[in-house]
Amino acid sequence: MARAANGMKAAVLRKLRQKLKVEAMPIPEPGHGEILIKVVACGVCHSDLHAVDGDWNPGPVLPLIPGHEVAGTVAGLGTGVAGFKVGQRVGVPWMFSACGVCEFCLAGMETICQKGEATGYSKPGGYAEYMVAPAAFVAKLSPRIDMHEMAPILCAGVTTYRGLKRTSTRPGQWVTIVGIGGLGHIAVQYARAMGMRVAAVDVSEEKLKLARRLGAEFVADASKDDPAKLIQEKLGGTHGAIVTAVATRAFEQAIRMLRPGGTVSYIGLPGGKADEIRTSISAITNWELSVRGSNVGTRLDLHEAVAFATNGLIRAKIEKQPLKAVNAIFDRMRRGKIVGRVVLDIG
Amino acid sequence: MARAANGMKAAVLRKLRQKLKVEAMPIPEPGHGEILIKVVACGVCHSDLHAVDGDWNPGPVLPLIPGHEVAGTVAGLGTGVAGFKVGQRVGVPWMFSACGVCEFCLAGMETICQKGEATGYSKPGGYAEYMVAPAAFVAKLSPRIDMHEMAPILCAGVTTYRGLKRTSTRPGQWVTIVGIGGLGHIAVQYARAMGMRVAAVDVSEEKLKLARRLGAEFVADASKDDPAKLIQEKLGGTHGAIVTAVATRAFEQAIRMLRPGGTVSYIGLPGGKADEIRTSISAITNWELSVRGSNVGTRLDLHEAVAFATNGLIRAKIEKQPLKAVNAIFDRMRRGKIVGRVVLDIG
Amino acid sequence: MARAANGMKAAVLRKLRQKLKVEAMPIPEPGHGEILIKVVACGVCHSDLHAVDGDWNPGPVLPLIPGHEVAGTVAGLGTGVAGFKVGQRVGVPWMFSACGVCEFCLAGMETICQKGEATGYSKPGGYAEYMVAPAAFVAKLSPRIDMHEMAPILCAGVTTYRGLKRTSTRPGQWVTIVGIGGLGHIAVQYARAMGMRVAAVDVSEEKLKLARRLGAEFVADASKDDPAKLIQEKLGGTHGAIVTAVATRAFEQAIRMLRPGGTVSYIGLPGGKADEIRTSISAITNWELSVRGSNVGTRLDLHEAVAFATNGLIRAKIEKQPLKAVNAIFDRMRRGKIVGRVVLDIG
Amino acid sequence: MARAANGMKAAVLRKLRQKLKVEAMPIPEPGHGEILIKVVACGVCHSDLHAVDGDWNPGPVLPLIPGHEVAGTVAGLGTGVAGFKVGQRVGVPWMFSACGVCEFCLAGMETICQKGEATGYSKPGGYAEYMVAPAAFVAKLSPRIDMHEMAPILCAGVTTYRGLKRTSTRPGQWVTIVGIGGLGHIAVQYARAMGMRVAAVDVSEEKLKLARRLGAEFVADASKDDPAKLIQEKLGGTHGAIVTAVATRAFEQAIRMLRPGGTVSYIGLPGGKADEIRTSISAITNWELSVRGSNVGTRLDLHEAVAFATNGLIRAKIEKQPLKAVNAIFDRMRRGKIVGRVVLDIG
Ligand SMILES: [Zn+2]
Ligand SMILES: [Zn+2]
Ligand SMILES: [Zn+2]
Ligand SMILES: [Zn+2]
Ligand SMILES: [Zn+2]
Ligand SMILES: [Zn+2]
Ligand SMILES: [Zn+2]
Ligand SMILES: [Zn+2]
Repeated sequence: MARAANGMKAAVLRKLRQKLKVEAMPIPEPGHGEILIKVVACGVCHSDLHAVDGDWNPGPVLPLIPGHEVAGTVAGLGTGVAGFKVGQRVGVPWMFSACGVCEFCLAGMETICQKGEATGYSKPGGYAEYMVAPAAFVAKLSPRIDMHEMAPILCAGVTTYRGLKRTSTRPGQWVTIVGIGGLGHIAVQYARAMGMRVAAVDVSEEKLKLARRLGAEFVADASKDDPAKLIQEKLGGTHGAIVTAVATRAFEQAIRMLRPGGTVSYIGLPGGKADEIRTSISAITNWELSVRGSNVGTRLDLHEAVAFATNGLIRAKIEKQPLKAVNAIFDRMRRGKIVGRVVLDIG
Repeated sequence: MARAANGMKAAVLRKLRQKLKVEAMPIPEPGHGEILIKVVACGVCHSDLHAVDGDWNPGPVLPLIPGHEVAGTVAGLGTGVAGFKVGQRVGVPWMFSACGVCEFCLAGMETICQKGEATGYSKPGGYAEYMVAPAAFVAKLSPRIDMHEMAPILCAGVTTYRGLKRTSTRPGQWVTIVGIGGLGHIAVQYARAMGMRVAAVDVSEEKLKLARRLGAEFVADASKDDPAKLIQEKLGGTHGAIVTAVATRAFEQAIRMLRPGGTVSYIGLPGGKADEIRTSISAITNWELSVRGSNVGTRLDLHEAVAFATNGLIRAKIEKQPLKAVNAIFDRMRRGKIVGRVVLDIG
Repeated sequence: MARAANGMKAAVLRKLRQKLKVEAMPIPEPGHGEILIKVVACGVCHSDLHAVDGDWNPGPVLPLIPGHEVAGTVAGLGTGVAGFKVGQRVGVPWMFSACGVCEFCLAGMETICQKGEATGYSKPGGYAEYMVAPAAFVAKLSPRIDMHEMAPILCAGVTTYRGLKRTSTRPGQWVTIVGIGGLGHIAVQYARAMGMRVAAVDVSEEKLKLARRLGAEFVADASKDDPAKLIQEKLGGTHGAIVTAVATRAFEQAIRMLRPGGTVSYIGLPGGKADEIRTSISAITNWELSVRGSNVGTRLDLHEAVAFATNGLIRAKIEKQPLKAVNAIFDRMRRGKIVGRVVLDIG
Repeated sequence: MARAANGMKAAVLRKLRQKLKVEAMPIPEPGHGEILIKVVACGVCHSDLHAVDGDWNPGPVLPLIPGHEVAGTVAGLGTGVAGFKVGQRVGVPWMFSACGVCEFCLAGMETICQKGEATGYSKPGGYAEYMVAPAAFVAKLSPRIDMHEMAPILCAGVTTYRGLKRTSTRPGQWVTIVGIGGLGHIAVQYARAMGMRVAAVDVSEEKLKLARRLGAEFVADASKDDPAKLIQEKLGGTHGAIVTAVATRAFEQAIRMLRPGGTVSYIGLPGGKADEIRTSISAITNWELSVRGSNVGTRLDLHEAVAFATNGLIRAKIEKQPLKAVNAIFDRMRRGKIVGRVVLDIG
């Protein structure tokens, strides 16, 4: 396995709530069943900010190299790896690994495996020139796709795709996408590719315009109207809804956007005080609504989400930045100043 | 249609939150597609109390004859009724009628039909010697069953049966029944008949003993322990849960009783301030939990729930009382002093 | 109810296997719950030919007015009809009525109701200026659609739509459409609208070109290659398949086109000797394949199929003909000389 | 890893269609991720006979040690094995391994993994004192069960359990078990434990009596009546059916036993000429029937099937025999002279 003897660059968090520092690190060795990946691009996800800020419990493993929207090429193979060769393109998602033998893994619910590891959280991620990942858990990427555009599919794509699936909305039915940001603008595209009719809710006129361009048939500006009321009046409610916004109020409102019998998927994690929502039992019972959690995605979701993108049906709106810009990007993210997705250009 | 010329006795509510009065009323005439029913037995459901107290919005249609767990015999046929004859046994549930043509009715979700009528709420019910009901919405009852024991199946049975179905708990998996009262003691039996393993939660030792006798393998006394903690420690959480209790806290706790990926059905309606619950978004998202409403049952649920009881798999624990005792029964219900189900002995 | 006193024209079959005769008939009276419909357009379906030829058992009720792809306007209302007004556009499908109360009707499977009636088979159909139908079973059509193009949706559309649903193929997965004729060219469009990837199989180069234009990504010419072998080699088999062809061999081949775990829907009825197919048990067992029947569609399917067409996602390729041309059309159909769908221009 | 230095005894097939020979063999070494198992009991399945006779294509890997209903104890651990310790009880099913990363494995359909290996067919099985198996694919067995009675659960149990699941029969609905032999008598018990109502079909009065004792409510003697006709007349058909018999006719009849909308699972493999069945397209289409293959079971099925047995709900009727009796047992099996299941007593 020939490669630069003098290590790699990586953006590292040494202490929670501090700045990342781009430092020289040893290139990791792939263990049994693992591959070494030369990172080409890595998306910056809102979850990376939660990791750095220590918003969730348990917190990340320090020192931390964040990043879980990784597109790269195979640079080396550990023992026991079959079906991969050096130079091949791969993608690494949030779900670094799962145990493979628990009742959840065996039931196609590896997203809730109690022994799962998370890329860029409990394991080193893609804010680096190299990383390792278990061969069984990466996605194979096509030579014909744009690696930087594919990066956000590996988290934002998979997460919204599974979220949509878990609403059980069928082709021809309506789904509301609450929040048309990094996740939402991708969710609109998956919903359309899955044959759904889309209602989009946001507080920004510009983002609602983007939603319309991407195929939303109905938009509601929550800064001007009560979106739930509007959706009930105009559409009779929607069969499904997913909440990509992080405001508690968005989660509460989403239930009221549903048509009787409808399902809302929660795919975000506001964290801290924003974690608690108030719900009306009678609304849920009388109209037989469902509220379902959806946690990133399984490998099946990953492969399917990547396939949609590879076939040209999903295209993330991205902005490229160098690795060293990571702290500035986090600042902009904190201030809500990012449109679409920032992708670190590493390779 | 030969019958007593001098009318019938019925327990009538003239004004919300007042006592019912047993009065003479004209025997109603069955309209097109309707049958006249001579009531034999009518269960007293907690919802009757909510109706009388005006707890729900919109309120009942006054004057009101409550009662929606009606077992009786056909006493007359309106025009256009086929497949019924006088003397035949029938049961009337909460769902008096649904429109039959809306998207919900056509999707097997007539429980959420926006044009549905409710027995003993928007239409006269079974606290009377006679009532009418649409032939298409009643259950045919077997000559071999006990009419008084069957009455509670028509609401308590159907409601818990559908609630269990909506948890998607499969045979061999665990379900928690929260509250072992009028609904709960029937829910335990349906769960067992459906092949589920049962955990029962209540604050009364006596009710937990009853649950054990009916087949619960695990019981938790919520007056002594945190039942959610106990269920997580001993069972790893349960795949499903239904909440038959009316305390807000029970609804909140039930979510914490679930195994990752599990589903809780809400089948009750506490009403008023107790309607609002607090939920953790991260609990739902991280463990991919589902919260689903379940509103009484469809006709399919009704026929299936009745069939289980007819086959001897479900048996309601009942106490017979005369119609005139209705106000006293409501008083006992308010004070939580009823064990099992009170059934009015009318016919 | 004002209308022409001197009756209506209709194409009538007096004896099996004879020519239809266009005769004067009395305009039918709508009964309770029925509407009178002035027919504007009626598609000519292959099933009409089976009816006239007496291919199925039991045969049609004679004298027979065929036609079950009826687009028309309400011309009169029977008693007990609500929600319709004269002049409103409606469509009548094959499923004239179902009982509404049997276990199949209540389970959302009214397609298999044992008491169902069939338009243009057991009840007079749309090869006439007027017909009656139960209000509860017709589709409401939009003022903005083309009535002649909508007609084929009412059978060919509904049937292929339900057939596709019953394959359980998910958005992003592959489905094979075997036969790109009257049903098949519509099936390709529904599959695309439902997010599926389409493989098309036919023996006509022209029809395969049409399939490509309508969105098929893969086509196989069964006159040149073994389509099952090709589909296995190039696509690894498809997740779903529907057979719209009437050759026995097509039914047998379709199973071999499936990917492991795949499902084929049978939506056609070859009749007579062609009814019997040979299947390999080991193919089904080893690869866990499913073979499922699909019989026209429920009202839910009807409303959904119409909605897809109303939204511009499905467009039948039609040829208009006058009512009197019906026997000539049947002749062409027998010789396989019809491309797309012939629609009788009646109103 | 301390064990007998002088090897083990095993029943080995050196050439298709010849007798097995009990010989001394070296004890195998567990590889990475594998465990060495000391065999206690191994059931004799009809598939073992098919293997020895070379009935299927591709045939078994020679020399072959058959046996895939293995109950034993852990005797040694390969590298990379966690969660097991020496002395612990384990069970090995037909599915020796699956790749874990293909679309089928990831979709919870590892039964159809194209890279799967089969115990006692492509890999050495349990007709031996020792065998190895991948730790990830064995079942952990309770200390409180009888190892000999548990052995048949590992194939007969898992196979019928999955077959029943794939009929989608719900609790309270009817299922027909065709054939009450080694698989069928276990299928009756799973069906009852899953809340189904059971109809049993066989040609032996004794076996039908056994079915009754195990909970079948309806039995049909196919040597005296047309069982399909009887089941239609008396039960209106059953919602589900599984075919455990190996006669082609049983497969054909089973479809005719179904209620409209019903599903039959094929779980057996007659092989050779008996593999081809004739089916009526119109029966399948008109009544919307489903025919589904079911191929042994996944690990999830395995763990669930074992749990039912551990909880005392399933009990195989067994006859113990020594390893050296294997050829005599095969002879009896060929002549249909085995009641219940023969289990080799090895440990
Ligand atoms: Zn796991
Ligand atoms: Zn992310
Ligand atoms: Zn009630
Ligand atoms: Zn309705
Ligand atoms: Zn047709
Ligand atoms: Zn029906
Ligand atoms: Zn076996
Ligand atoms: Zn595999």
